[in-house]
Amino acid sequence: MADPQHANPLDDLLARVHARFRDHADGETAAFVKALGTVDETDFGIALTTVDGHTYTHGQATTEFAIQSISKAFTYAVALADSGFEAVDAVIDVEPSGEAFNEISLQEGSGRPSNAMINAGAIAATSLVAGRSSNPYVEDGASLYTPDQGASSHDETTGRTSAATPTDGTRAATPTGGVSADAPTGPREGETRRERLRRAFSTMADRELTVNPEVLAFEREDGDRNLALAHLMRSFGLISEGPEAIADDYFAACSIDVTVTDLSMMATLLATGGIHPRTGRRLLDQAVVDRVLGVMTTCGMYDDAGEWIVRVGLPAKSGVGGGIIAVVPGQVGLAVYSPLLDQHGNSERGVLACEALSDALDLHLMRGARVRHAAVRSSYPVSDTPSGVRRAPAAERLLTEHGDRSRVVEIQGELGFGPAESVMRQLSRLTEVDAVVLDVRRVTEVTRFAREGLVRVAAEHADEGRLVVLVDDSGHVFTEDATERLTTRTTSPPDGSRRNQPGVIVRRQRRAAIEAVEDFLLSRHGDEDLRPETIEVSDAILMTALDPADVEQLEEIMRPRTHREGDVIIEEGQDFAGIHVVVTGSVQTTHADEDDEEHRVNVLGPGSSFGEFGLVGDHRHWLTVTALEEVETRVLDAAALARLEEDDPRLALRLWKAISADAYHRVQVQLAEITARASEAR
Amino acid sequence: MADPQHANPLDDLLARVHARFRDHADGETAAFVKALGTVDETDFGIALTTVDGHTYTHGQATTEFAIQSISKAFTYAVALADSGFEAVDAVIDVEPSGEAFNEISLQEGSGRPSNAMINAGAIAATSLVAGRSSNPYVEDGASLYTPDQGASSHDETTGRTSAATPTDGTRAATPTGGVSADAPTGPREGETRRERLRRAFSTMADRELTVNPEVLAFEREDGDRNLALAHLMRSFGLISEGPEAIADDYFAACSIDVTVTDLSMMATLLATGGIHPRTGRRLLDQAVVDRVLGVMTTCGMYDDAGEWIVRVGLPAKSGVGGGIIAVVPGQVGLAVYSPLLDQHGNSERGVLACEALSDALDLHLMRGARVRHAAVRSSYPVSDTPSGVRRAPAAERLLTEHGDRSRVVEIQGELGFGPAESVMRQLSRLTEVDAVVLDVRRVTEVTRFAREGLVRVAAEHADEGRLVVLVDDSGHVFTEDATERLTTRTTSPPDGSRRNQPGVIVRRQRRAAIEAVEDFLLSRHGDEDLRPETIEVSDAILMTALDPADVEQLEEIMRPRTHREGDVIIEEGQDFAGIHVVVTGSVQTTHADEDDEEHRVNVLGPGSSFGEFGLVGDHRHWLTVTALEEVETRVLDAAALARLEEDDPRLALRLWKAISADAYHRVQVQLAEITARASEAR
Repeated sequence: MADPQHANPLDDLLARVHARFRDHADGETAAFVKALGTVDETDFGIALTTVDGHTYTHGQATTEFAIQSISKAFTYAVALADSGFEAVDAVIDVEPSGEAFNEISLQEGSGRPSNAMINAGAIAATSLVAGRSSNPYVEDGASLYTPDQGASSHDETTGRTSAATPTDGTRAATPTGGVSADAPTGPREGETRRERLRRAFSTMADRELTVNPEVLAFEREDGDRNLALAHLMRSFGLISEGPEAIADDYFAACSIDVTVTDLSMMATLLATGGIHPRTGRRLLDQAVVDRVLGVMTTCGMYDDAGEWIVRVGLPAKSGVGGGIIAVVPGQVGLAVYSPLLDQHGNSERGVLACEALSDALDLHLMRGARVRHAAVRSSYPVSDTPSGVRRAPAAERLLTEHGDRSRVVEIQGELGFGPAESVMRQLSRLTEVDAVVLDVRRVTEVTRFAREGLVRVAAEHADEGRLVVLVDDSGHVFTEDATERLTTRTTSPPDGSRRNQPGVIVRRQRRAAIEAVEDFLLSRHGDEDLRPETIEVSDAILMTALDPADVEQLEEIMRPRTHREGDVIIEEGQDFAGIHVVVTGSVQTTHADEDDEEHRVNVLGPGSSFGEFGLVGDHRHWLTVTALEEVETRVLDAAALARLEEDDPRLALRLWKAISADAYHRVQVQLAEITARASEAR
Repeated sequence: MADPQHANPLDDLLARVHARFRDHADGETAAFVKALGTVDETDFGIALTTVDGHTYTHGQATTEFAIQSISKAFTYAVALADSGFEAVDAVIDVEPSGEAFNEISLQEGSGRPSNAMINAGAIAATSLVAGRSSNPYVEDGASLYTPDQGASSHDETTGRTSAATPTDGTRAATPTGGVSADAPTGPREGETRRERLRRAFSTMADRELTVNPEVLAFEREDGDRNLALAHLMRSFGLISEGPEAIADDYFAACSIDVTVTDLSMMATLLATGGIHPRTGRRLLDQAVVDRVLGVMTTCGMYDDAGEWIVRVGLPAKSGVGGGIIAVVPGQVGLAVYSPLLDQHGNSERGVLACEALSDALDLHLMRGARVRHAAVRSSYPVSDTPSGVRRAPAAERLLTEHGDRSRVVEIQGELGFGPAESVMRQLSRLTEVDAVVLDVRRVTEVTRFAREGLVRVAAEHADEGRLVVLVDDSGHVFTEDATERLTTRTTSPPDGSRRNQPGVIVRRQRRAAIEAVEDFLLSRHGDEDLRPETIEVSDAILMTALDPADVEQLEEIMRPRTHREGDVIIEEGQDFAGIHVVVTGSVQTTHADEDDEEHRVNVLGPGSSFGEFGLVGDHRHWLTVTALEEVETRVLDAAALARLEEDDPRLALRLWKAISADAYHRVQVQLAEITARASEAR
């Protein structure tokens, strides 16, 4: 038996992947790890954080290790946030260098580093982080690498903070186009650059991180190549401050201790586009995240970036401390830690684990979008699924003849570009019909292109004299704004009060949409009798099962009533108010949900009846009925009905049989829609 | 007014993008273009082909130009298909070189080219294409570069062809793991290597392509660097044949003339994973396409690959002829042609147009997956939306008390990894309930992980003694196989014949699922009276509106009937057969669609009634009713009903009022479900 708290399948997968590579002991630890002598080579941890902040881990999830080059992705993000794209791009390119992480590699002529994921680029990025320089030769090292006073708790301020005031030796925050000055949490006045980075990383990890002084000491000792790069870059005018100070800030950022759990959280910050998965705060602008992910895609895995994209297919960054992060935009951030490195400097077990997870979870970006179900779920004339409204034989014949001059198009799924294009193409071809029903209730996502395209195609059909009925029960495809643009620019208002005109109307149910199309077809192809503005009571749907003599008798005891536009004829919750037959005009029925939000159920025109719900259960009305225009009805009220039952039980019996037949007909129409759906889905 | 055939919004977009960059005349044409002197510098064409083979174009869509380096992507594909991954990977790496296309660039030590998108790699890939060598110094050039006899029509053979028989000077096709020997169309015996490529490209473009002799002449004349590379690679033992012959085949492939329309078709072949968008034939294995796209992502745009990924975010390849292709996996292939090149050798207008299209159509791979709607659409106890089955007051009280020991979870959209994880996590937490309804009717896509995860979570709940009801009307989430595994490994068969046992059952409608949960809760928390195996007629739902004396009278004229498992009690289409009250056992109702496929509508147990549909319209039954086990009913048949109406119209009237109330109650329950959905969707 399983645990009372079920093991999530993902926990199992992480355990399986962990077990599979646990004994894989190839590779060597980095020089700094060897020098420290404190790291266990068998350490192996996997963490995965979802965009809503849930973390799964397996193995060493709380073991700290040096972030090393993974810091480059986040230093780049902070530099972009603090100094803006223009200033950063002037100094750092975005091209893969194809070289190992520690090559002395600057572009010919400009001296510009190829990208921010190699050492030269990361040093340049560090120089573009807002904050005061620390002078490693003057200030005491150790004190610098623990949190500033007052910075040990997270900055919980919200809203924009002002840019730091420039002081001597301080690079001011100079945000440009689209970059928040306060992202992530913003620089603080007088703060050192390295403290700004440490604090920013801590906010991203949602945990107070510290610089590991032993690692920092090693990096300084071993820092000649990086100091050389910093000096070279100053010789090209790319960094203006003391190369030693900048390099030392870079060393400090690389020496921050993290766990694989911290890293998965930081990776997920990139997956969400900059919103922290736990706290929900926006820490980075979308544009900054887009840029960082783009550069990680081609440059994140040292000189193994190509192989990585082929095998794993995700933006990623690794560090010689043994960590790797990988990002699935919109879905999840992954991190793996194992200190044994391959010849490229990437964690051996880390690469294997990421590949296995990408494969098992279908995360590869170049493979994810495969084999979609068609966006158009089905397309058929309304005559295939009649509304079920009973009509005069002549009207039925006319609908049989002209029913195929209409089309119900059901769309489903995520309307990314490809599916949206296909839908629009199919809709554009419907030039031979009089009416189009566009059922978007199964659409889950819409891009701008898809929404605008649908609006446009709908508007064009309306302009060309067709009726377009949108079936949408949520409003996320046809937003309020889109619906308003559609229904106001065309001739028919959405409330259906001007029936049978070309234009765009909205219905919540397919049956109601089909009824509207049938009415439109009757008015276009038939003469006035088939869809009259005023009917006789004997033509009402409810009365079709009764013979003329019965109807005549009933008419005698029904009272005529008139209502003006907006009048509430029946209110939800009131006692049974009688059976109403609509003779002229139209009404809408609505039902309030528990939040008192009214939802339209139906629009009823001449020949329909309402009020029967008041006959059910506690004899209270379940729907509110409102006049959409001037309405004339005939009402058989409760008292008249009771008298009829008393005085002429046989007629009352026939009336109740008619009411039953009408009710079961409604049940049948609804069930038919449901089974039709099941049938289409095959 | 718009055209009778609507302009598709995409046509407009292409026109707008074209107009925006038409006058952008920066850049220079390639040396070969200058030498030819036949190209119009203002040429600018855009083409886009969808995965179902529809092509949109604007500008010069039929102008031919040399494919140049775009051939490298497809030569690489053919080499992988002909020689297998192992042989190709031994000779060509997959890493970005960060260098210009024509650098003399081979990896230190091995001499291996960094990737197949630079000249050295493409020459090596050419050597791995199956086919006979051509000797440019012996054979007449011109005759070589037009189609072989008999090769001018497309190869329409289907199925696998055998690998070419090796002959002298011919590299045999040596397919390995997962690579089709016949992709694309397979090598032909005795065919030259360049003819194999020309023919393969033609099949991909779905048009007969030819080598442009003037371009080829220029490439040969200007071929020193490439000949040097070929010789260097032979010195490393990477190519075994005459470097001149291999280089000449490479020149020939680069000199093939294409249009932007051809290129968009070839790009879409990669978008579909290897299935031709027009012909529907599989030309390349998925694994080959995955590899080609992976390498294009980091290496396709010369030394501008990083910038391209940041700005456009798609796998792509450009050529100095002025063409660019870009691929949106699963959706579309793009191609642009304009001969003016930037300093990287990429078409100026081409890059700008691709960036504009990627932006307008949300095609950027690192941005596409944003801001999803939650996969769990809603989650609530069954007591929030009762089934509407009317029950005894004690049962109602018990459901009020214990209704929250159940949960209806509605899922929607594409269940990629992220959404699926979130769903499973929420489902795993439901350890405090007795029953779970999992409504997957709005799910449009499922990955392996999602399906297996859902099956597993459902099975675990069942193993722990819960009732799990799957609401699925299409079977694409819970496939037949998955359903069978679920329903056979748990205690309750899917037909519901052993009611109220823990296990997994399937229902098509939410209302039916909720009813099953209510029954389960009653049997678990109540005593036997609340969900008895056998009821009295007076306890039937239909009878609740009648007083005991009336029920007693009706019982006298109802006939008892028994049926065995599998008996058809009422057949769809037959005349009214009476109103049946189920006393013991259960039945199912089904309805046949136009293809005579039966769809289950409902399962009815003791206390339910059926047969009322036979009262509607033409008095024929609309549903087939079948006994799921030994069933006992009481039937009021047509004759008895007619007699009752004649003899005791007042009692008949009360019965018909009860029937009406029951019917309207059903209508109300269905409408309530629809408005509840609308409410949730807000």
